[in-house]
Amino acid sequence: MAGARLATTLARSSLAAASASRRPSGPNLLASLPRGSSNMAGSIERSGSGGITRVLFCGPYWPASTIYTKEYLQNYPFIQVDEVGLEEVPDVIQNYHLCVVKNRRIDSDIIAKASQMKVIMQYGVGIEGVNVNAATEHKIKVARIPGSTTGNAVSCAEMAIYLTLGVLRKQKVMDTAVKRKDLGIPVGDTIFGKSVLILGFGAIGVEVAKRLRPFGVKILATKRNWSSDTLPCDIDELVDKKGGPEDMYEFAGEADIVIACLLLTKETVGIVDHKFLSAMKKGSYLVNIARGGLLDYDAVFNHLKSGHLGGLGIDVAWTEPYDPEDPILKFSNVIITPHIAGVTEYSYRTMAKVVGDVALKLHSGEPITEVEFVN
Amino acid sequence: MAGARLATTLARSSLAAASASRRPSGPNLLASLPRGSSNMAGSIERSGSGGITRVLFCGPYWPASTIYTKEYLQNYPFIQVDEVGLEEVPDVIQNYHLCVVKNRRIDSDIIAKASQMKVIMQYGVGIEGVNVNAATEHKIKVARIPGSTTGNAVSCAEMAIYLTLGVLRKQKVMDTAVKRKDLGIPVGDTIFGKSVLILGFGAIGVEVAKRLRPFGVKILATKRNWSSDTLPCDIDELVDKKGGPEDMYEFAGEADIVIACLLLTKETVGIVDHKFLSAMKKGSYLVNIARGGLLDYDAVFNHLKSGHLGGLGIDVAWTEPYDPEDPILKFSNVIITPHIAGVTEYSYRTMAKVVGDVALKLHSGEPITEVEFVN
Repeated sequence: MAGARLATTLARSSLAAASASRRPSGPNLLASLPRGSSNMAGSIERSGSGGITRVLFCGPYWPASTIYTKEYLQNYPFIQVDEVGLEEVPDVIQNYHLCVVKNRRIDSDIIAKASQMKVIMQYGVGIEGVNVNAATEHKIKVARIPGSTTGNAVSCAEMAIYLTLGVLRKQKVMDTAVKRKDLGIPVGDTIFGKSVLILGFGAIGVEVAKRLRPFGVKILATKRNWSSDTLPCDIDELVDKKGGPEDMYEFAGEADIVIACLLLTKETVGIVDHKFLSAMKKGSYLVNIARGGLLDYDAVFNHLKSGHLGGLGIDVAWTEPYDPEDPILKFSNVIITPHIAGVTEYSYRTMAKVVGDVALKLHSGEPITEVEFVN
Repeated sequence: MAGARLATTLARSSLAAASASRRPSGPNLLASLPRGSSNMAGSIERSGSGGITRVLFCGPYWPASTIYTKEYLQNYPFIQVDEVGLEEVPDVIQNYHLCVVKNRRIDSDIIAKASQMKVIMQYGVGIEGVNVNAATEHKIKVARIPGSTTGNAVSCAEMAIYLTLGVLRKQKVMDTAVKRKDLGIPVGDTIFGKSVLILGFGAIGVEVAKRLRPFGVKILATKRNWSSDTLPCDIDELVDKKGGPEDMYEFAGEADIVIACLLLTKETVGIVDHKFLSAMKKGSYLVNIARGGLLDYDAVFNHLKSGHLGGLGIDVAWTEPYDPEDPILKFSNVIITPHIAGVTEYSYRTMAKVVGDVALKLHSGEPITEVEFVN
């Protein structure tokens, strides 16, 4: 399988990408923009000059993104969609007008080569791997697909519930019990009666809260700006206790379950660190469906080892794909999924349409309204 | 571990128990009683005659049931709680006043030996393994613990959501992807947008519906008696389409996900059969958190093999503990858990208190109000 071939040597870690963002020339991350500030890209120059508009998908992972986009565009022969190996991207990027980055880091040296590029985008929300400043210098627009309208947030929220239940019910211990022909063990924990802290109350956090509500929980949430116009009107019914980033340590002390739904930015990289984990209740659970780089590896490892952390459920890891032999996965109360929180038939078909429509509009020169531009 | 020692030879299958119920002398199952008809057991003779009241837990499975009950009763030296191997039950039952059956089949021959027995009960709801008629003949009361007040229904409902998400996201394929260092596969399915059929709208079904609602689903449900006073008042907000048992085939044709929440009775044994599965949509999903005997093994196997069934998530199986090498578990879209849907800290502590209080009241001769008697 293509994924396996390239995996070991080529994977770019979200942590590495985040580290880049700490440099002065790092990306002007979307996170630092006010929400709802989507720019129209009406001024983007028409691509392909009447010939072929070329779309580059970086790397073999999340293969359905490429496949579904190709299927959506199959009746438009003037749009060419290619998937290129992660390490080949710098060698071919000059041929493309639209780039879907996936987990490829797009640094200034690659951007400098992208002479025909009009738009660099994510098949989803996270664009922490793109050097937005460099793109801006080269008059390349950078965009993400807002999660609230494509099913991405919904899909990620469902995955957050799945991972939460998985750690509460001790998925690995259950699997072992089945193999050993044990019955009625382990004793799990319910979501019912718990306090849940949602770190980052964006589109995903909102959908998580909606779904958690009838489980019978107290919901605490942190967010930089609670006056955002993207919040649902029934916010007071969804959240029992609202706070800013500075409240996360205090809230951690009240929560039985913490779910990380933050964007990865300069401010959030490694935010779940020793200080935060120590502030969490003994035996409480941590779920991460956002980006691996939000968690400080050593701090998480140490809090698992000490037993302070009762369980860890992650869809994202520090490097991706993640080493299945990593010591952190050896703990019986740690479960991992292969970065598929947003990967559902629903969201992937919808996002394929978004990418396809961006390509079509680039080709025709029409204004692009489907995505959120960050520069 | 004790469980493993006794597992192979001693396990009683719920199917076997259900088969017994087809005999004329079979249990007068609770299912045939109107709900809310709980009998008071004020007339039960005081146990132990001022000495020791003895409580028998059958078999090594669901070990926390015994442990937590012992803990609850630790300050009452006049209550003796014992766990006895499944095959030893007939040899010692004459010494006990209260019996918690777990998965032990309690036939008329065992009941005939239970000369001091006052109450036979389940640590939970399912008493399909008890010959209620024989118990009645011997003036032994049979009881279950209503799930709606102990956290059992809540725990089972959470597990139903977990298994539903597990089959939709293709748990085994995800695990394989992690091991292979793949990323972003498989493409899963969302609960969002689906139609869900809940078979059996009792205490568990209600809790499942409450939790599914904000996922964005259409909910269909079947129930014998929709006028039951145990239904929540907002029933019309929970269920989009209500039907009786006769509607299950039509409803199956509309559903993307079917969740079995039925009691196992003469009427329901094998109810998910070839006819029902064939009526389900191609590619739809089946979840069972109730009793293994509800499903016809061959029909399920054949519909998995043909691809008609898109996935199967079961907490209960045809024999228990279930053979981990059973061919049905080899399908990549089948997941199983070790009959722990109701096994949570919350429900097990609450039910330990119920069993403990029954023992204390048996000892003192007080009326027993914590359980629902079926005879």
